[in-house]
Amino acid sequence: MIVNFAQRAHNHNFEADWIVRSLLDTDFYKLLMLQFIWKHYARLPVTFSLINRTTRISLAAQIDEAELRRQLDHARSLRFRRSELTWLAGNSFYGRRGIFEPAFIDWLSGFHLPEYRLDYRDGQVALCFEGVWSETTMWEVPALSIVNELRTRTNLARMSEFELDLFYAHAKAKLWSKINTLRGIGDLAVSDFGTRRRHSFLWQEYVVGAMAAELGKSFTGTSNVFLALKHDLEAIGTNAHELPMVLAALESDRGGLRDAQYRVLELWQQTYGGALLVMLPDTFGSAQFLANAPSWATDWTGIRIDSKDPFLAGEEYIDWLQARGADPGTKRVLFSDGLDVDDIVALHRQFGGRIKDGYGWGTLLTNDFRGFHPRGASDFEPISLVCKVTEAAGRPVVKLSDNSGKATGSAAEIARYRKVFGQAGIARAPVLV
Amino acid sequence: MIVNFAQRAHNHNFEADWIVRSLLDTDFYKLLMLQFIWKHYARLPVTFSLINRTTRISLAAQIDEAELRRQLDHARSLRFRRSELTWLAGNSFYGRRGIFEPAFIDWLSGFHLPEYRLDYRDGQVALCFEGVWSETTMWEVPALSIVNELRTRTNLARMSEFELDLFYAHAKAKLWSKINTLRGIGDLAVSDFGTRRRHSFLWQEYVVGAMAAELGKSFTGTSNVFLALKHDLEAIGTNAHELPMVLAALESDRGGLRDAQYRVLELWQQTYGGALLVMLPDTFGSAQFLANAPSWATDWTGIRIDSKDPFLAGEEYIDWLQARGADPGTKRVLFSDGLDVDDIVALHRQFGGRIKDGYGWGTLLTNDFRGFHPRGASDFEPISLVCKVTEAAGRPVVKLSDNSGKATGSAAEIARYRKVFGQAGIARAPVLV
Repeated sequence: MIVNFAQRAHNHNFEADWIVRSLLDTDFYKLLMLQFIWKHYARLPVTFSLINRTTRISLAAQIDEAELRRQLDHARSLRFRRSELTWLAGNSFYGRRGIFEPAFIDWLSGFHLPEYRLDYRDGQVALCFEGVWSETTMWEVPALSIVNELRTRTNLARMSEFELDLFYAHAKAKLWSKINTLRGIGDLAVSDFGTRRRHSFLWQEYVVGAMAAELGKSFTGTSNVFLALKHDLEAIGTNAHELPMVLAALESDRGGLRDAQYRVLELWQQTYGGALLVMLPDTFGSAQFLANAPSWATDWTGIRIDSKDPFLAGEEYIDWLQARGADPGTKRVLFSDGLDVDDIVALHRQFGGRIKDGYGWGTLLTNDFRGFHPRGASDFEPISLVCKVTEAAGRPVVKLSDNSGKATGSAAEIARYRKVFGQAGIARAPVLV
Repeated sequence: MIVNFAQRAHNHNFEADWIVRSLLDTDFYKLLMLQFIWKHYARLPVTFSLINRTTRISLAAQIDEAELRRQLDHARSLRFRRSELTWLAGNSFYGRRGIFEPAFIDWLSGFHLPEYRLDYRDGQVALCFEGVWSETTMWEVPALSIVNELRTRTNLARMSEFELDLFYAHAKAKLWSKINTLRGIGDLAVSDFGTRRRHSFLWQEYVVGAMAAELGKSFTGTSNVFLALKHDLEAIGTNAHELPMVLAALESDRGGLRDAQYRVLELWQQTYGGALLVMLPDTFGSAQFLANAPSWATDWTGIRIDSKDPFLAGEEYIDWLQARGADPGTKRVLFSDGLDVDDIVALHRQFGGRIKDGYGWGTLLTNDFRGFHPRGASDFEPISLVCKVTEAAGRPVVKLSDNSGKATGSAAEIARYRKVFGQAGIARAPVLV
């Protein structure tokens, strides 16, 4: 083999391998929410904070502070490229062209990530973003993917070349076996939701490429906008918990608090329509959400199940539709909570044909290296790292979730919210990712 | 293109890229001389010193001290591998098997490079090796190739990936054009002598591979023993100036001093024979060496021309042979002083057919990147760096050379030697490499 001298010299002298290559290297729903926020709440002061829910893992020990700052600073230096904005303006998403308004695209051209605050304390990385919602919201995904990939790199650096080779061979074999399992099922609608907790950007790109090549129409796209652009895939995603969380935090009385979750739907359907009308009912508990939902919510395209037992939650939605005289066969359910291939198979067996079932496959698609460390270390076990809104307009922000293990906010605030929303259907389940 | 994840992770985390990979990564003549020294002068205290003859270049500015120490320490950690010793014992060199005695091979199995002394002063790297001759002698080539390659790496690190790509493309094109020129000549005997001042080990390997593949029988081998073993090439080389330099330093009177150069020949032909009997007459001036050489020296196989104008020196040797009744057509002349392709062509035109002419092509084969720096910097201009004996048994050591620019030793000692050896045929010429 002839040595590639230029490559070799460059590899040994490279300045840095930037984790975030583009402001589009984020989830599509962040862009839809960004336009929503820009329209309705652009100047609202909102704080996002990084939270490691896997507290037994010390992130501070695995992530070099100087390198973290370099990567965060690099992300701050990024701007949307002209070609990216042209694509956002001209591409069709969910079958619709022109989802992003010209004025919004114009505003994006001046966008950059705002400042961050970083402290290493108690073995953890305290990272938060304070500023207006229309800027801080965009830190969520890059902050998570940077921290996750730096953890990956630290752990890779402890392996020999042989170990690395074997490690990736294992991961490829496992990915292939997952793909084969899905191929066996036939018609499916699986998409990549694994940006924030990916092993690395390049591994996500490999996984997405393999899925696209091997699963054909059963692979419906990726939440990663940069990969969607780069590889001509569908960009997938609609909205997330931060919308009801912030809107609820702005309310002072019980009624306002309870209605905030529906105010989000109202504003969302003013802003978007059609296939983008996918509800996320679990912010303060799905049971109360559905029970009290306005009648027009029945007309929405579908629902995303993100914290409740998905078998129960799917049936709950079907029952709710039928009780309101709607045909489940015309509706979508998108499962997105810690899925692995067996969950997809079992859920599809239960719901396939009864409702349009889709799967947003996250961490266990793009970061499943469990058990592959050649010396048995747990360095690559996924951790549950989130970047959540913790304050809005100076008020604390709360998420209850259908899984009490995923609740965020102070104990007092959680208690206050529980008095308003009740505890119907809320369970405690282990949080893997 | 699919990313090689293991390779990429390894490239970004590699501990070090060791310059010296084997104790065989040295010139073949060092091994022949080592056996000679081991037989006759094993315990003689001898100091080798690194000397940068291109004083306008500050080596200290281009070579990081810590990295230099790491590379030198790594070289000290090397031992001859069993397979290497088996090959030395069993391979035939210059058509003869068993050149290296079993007792010597046995001694080599315990060999390692001795300590070094390193100081950074006056912008230069003061590096020397003090100890017994049978150990310090082996530092010469690795010390030079380490310092040269570290200089290369520092300068490569200042180039972008595009610049690196272009830089090596230029170098390959130039190598190809040199090879084409030599191919046009037909029958030739060119070998690689470029280990000590190579751009890098891998580049030397590339160059040697290209020469072997393209020049067929006109490429006679390499002085690099490791490459000879690795690629089944002939190992080329016999002896160097350090032998007469040290033997002369041991002598106190004029007669002993003048005869030391012939004492080397006597001992050498006791130790080796046949094709290995190649004289190096220029240590104290070729003219006096030939004029006073014993009659049996005429029977030697050939001569190496290393500092005199090669056209004059070749004719001088032919005249000398004819005056002594020997047939030049049966003798070898090996040119090895700063050759480039045009020199080889012109010398072959003059001497081809009259004598067996051979070419030991050094720096301008393995380190010719002149003029390729994409921003015009002179970072890659070759420098004249040597590692010479400076002291033997506590006495100063001198080389006069046919080129007074290549003389080494104190001014007083050089003057003393010049009184003994005269100045016949000695000129001053620029020293490029």
